[in-house]
Amino acid sequence: MIYLYTDFGAGDIYVGQVKAALAQHAPSVSVIDIFHDAPAFQITANAHLLAALCQRLPPGSVVCAVVDPGVGGDRDGVVIATDDRYFVGPDNGLLSVVAARASILHVWKIQWQPALLSASFHGRDVFAPIAAWIAAGKFPTDKLSGLAKLGVETAPDDLAQIIYIDHYGNAYTGLRCAALGAAPTLTIKGNRLPRARTFSDVALGGAFWYENSLGLAEIAINQGSAAARFGLQIGDAVWV
Amino acid sequence: MIYLYTDFGAGDIYVGQVKAALAQHAPSVSVIDIFHDAPAFQITANAHLLAALCQRLPPGSVVCAVVDPGVGGDRDGVVIATDDRYFVGPDNGLLSVVAARASILHVWKIQWQPALLSASFHGRDVFAPIAAWIAAGKFPTDKLSGLAKLGVETAPDDLAQIIYIDHYGNAYTGLRCAALGAAPTLTIKGNRLPRARTFSDVALGGAFWYENSLGLAEIAINQGSAAARFGLQIGDAVWV
Amino acid sequence: MIYLYTDFGAGDIYVGQVKAALAQHAPSVSVIDIFHDAPAFQITANAHLLAALCQRLPPGSVVCAVVDPGVGGDRDGVVIATDDRYFVGPDNGLLSVVAARASILHVWKIQWQPALLSASFHGRDVFAPIAAWIAAGKFPTDKLSGLAKLGVETAPDDLAQIIYIDHYGNAYTGLRCAALGAAPTLTIKGNRLPRARTFSDVALGGAFWYENSLGLAEIAINQGSAAARFGLQIGDAVWV
Repeated sequence: MIYLYTDFGAGDIYVGQVKAALAQHAPSVSVIDIFHDAPAFQITANAHLLAALCQRLPPGSVVCAVVDPGVGGDRDGVVIATDDRYFVGPDNGLLSVVAARASILHVWKIQWQPALLSASFHGRDVFAPIAAWIAAGKFPTDKLSGLAKLGVETAPDDLAQIIYIDHYGNAYTGLRCAALGAAPTLTIKGNRLPRARTFSDVALGGAFWYENSLGLAEIAINQGSAAARFGLQIGDAVWV
Repeated sequence: MIYLYTDFGAGDIYVGQVKAALAQHAPSVSVIDIFHDAPAFQITANAHLLAALCQRLPPGSVVCAVVDPGVGGDRDGVVIATDDRYFVGPDNGLLSVVAARASILHVWKIQWQPALLSASFHGRDVFAPIAAWIAAGKFPTDKLSGLAKLGVETAPDDLAQIIYIDHYGNAYTGLRCAALGAAPTLTIKGNRLPRARTFSDVALGGAFWYENSLGLAEIAINQGSAAARFGLQIGDAVWV
Repeated sequence: MIYLYTDFGAGDIYVGQVKAALAQHAPSVSVIDIFHDAPAFQITANAHLLAALCQRLPPGSVVCAVVDPGVGGDRDGVVIATDDRYFVGPDNGLLSVVAARASILHVWKIQWQPALLSASFHGRDVFAPIAAWIAAGKFPTDKLSGLAKLGVETAPDDLAQIIYIDHYGNAYTGLRCAALGAAPTLTIKGNRLPRARTFSDVALGGAFWYENSLGLAEIAINQGSAAARFGLQIGDAVWV
């Protein structure tokens, strides 16, 4: 199974081209869209969200992750193998949280170029074929060279910032609740919020934070938009 | 085949997680997205739209329908079987129009919980596995208990309200044209609209109503937005 | 493989209905969404974008292309075969650029109607079944009649206009770079833009044009929105 995480836009013309490329190289492999509206230039937030979203994928999963503002420049393309999962994408920090949290990690640089290579769409022309071959069981050893580590690494520490805002207006932080312990409140933009178990435990319109379905601390309002009420944006700081 | 009807947002990170869960439990079953931008808290409108959208699905179809503001609270999860189709979702009224219009109806309460159960995402953790097992031919009798009827029932009567507005600005009502008979006009917000067969029978910019492709009365403008011209919202009343 | 290009809206309820119809008529054929947010009434721009998007599809591909404001009126439905690919859709100009650029072209008029035919959704009721049969290897000769050519033809010349704007704000023209030669600048709304190889060769915030991943001249800003800065819309003229 191939999972796609990109900033290509769920409504744009790019995801279909990636899927056409995947289908040509691995016609019998299924593809699941994880996320295509990733914030375009915010590598750190995406690195944390990607790690949270992929933590439970089954062994053998191949994730093609492309948020790649430097495409066509001198950043490398890489493949990493972490605990039985594979990730393919640019070496710009996007895969760094996944890599840092892996107990087993292998890193390869992509040496290969297709005959037809666009300067601006390596997701379609490079990462999709590589991901397809891996998912089809044909690991492209001849197109890769081993690396000691990723070129762009970030700390694996939890991120006390907003990393994602969904269409309801719920705001994900990069804080894993398992690490937070019994913290009773979170503060965002001067608003101190109590902890709750979930939406239905809070009065209509009440603001709170809770451990969400990815295990992250999330700021929410029962049947309302936390992003709208508190004016939240990706990157805003949170205090425990 | 599994069909998904949710308010998870076509552009958000939730649908992919549901599909990953479906793939783990029923890897060879195909999935079709019916609708993911269902209005989040409007159960009645969604109940009517869901019934209209699913009326022609082939026998054996499994619909996973999740608009679930009370998730994690005391509402039950249910499975219903109606005339050779299955629906899995919360017992909050969402399935009530489908149920009320079925000639044969069986209802089960979901008794099962997975080892890892989030408080806020039963679509992924409960409804997806149940739907996957049913679609894979493994009806999970041991995880269900029979019910006499749904806990939340609504009348199966047609709904003289706007239940859906598409991106063109066309506004669906909950009125089935088969029941309306030869009604010549519909009135919305003081505007009395003539009936037409379809868009191309009306002058450019002309407002009208017609029997749409789901058999519902729909308010439309030829190459224009009825929602914008008349200021329509879901829930607005319509008069025959 | 069936590819879908429509103006049905990635977030609306229409694509799922088309896919349900495809699955009923060709259950084992895969479907890829090329684009569903095609501008609704702009046939010329869509004809050029469709041609660019489909130029590299593999032999045997079936494209179901529906931007069809005249649905239910007197426009015909057609099938065209071009160089080993098939296109199914309305005969309103949408397929005319694909047809004009084909070295081999066959055209058929769709004579068939299903028992249940909506007046407004031939994408689901007519084009999807025809596309499904072709993709499943059952070319529906008995439902088609040969035509000398399309009813609505446009010139195959490149189009010196904006034909697509993506969510980053990049603006595609209908100019193929192979035909432009060594043109150093493009002018849009009085702004004369230099040519570059790709984003990462330009300073942050710099405006430029380049040969994009479809081989078209595209107006862009490195990590910014050209559409917002220059106020671009589909149909705006470009000067070489």
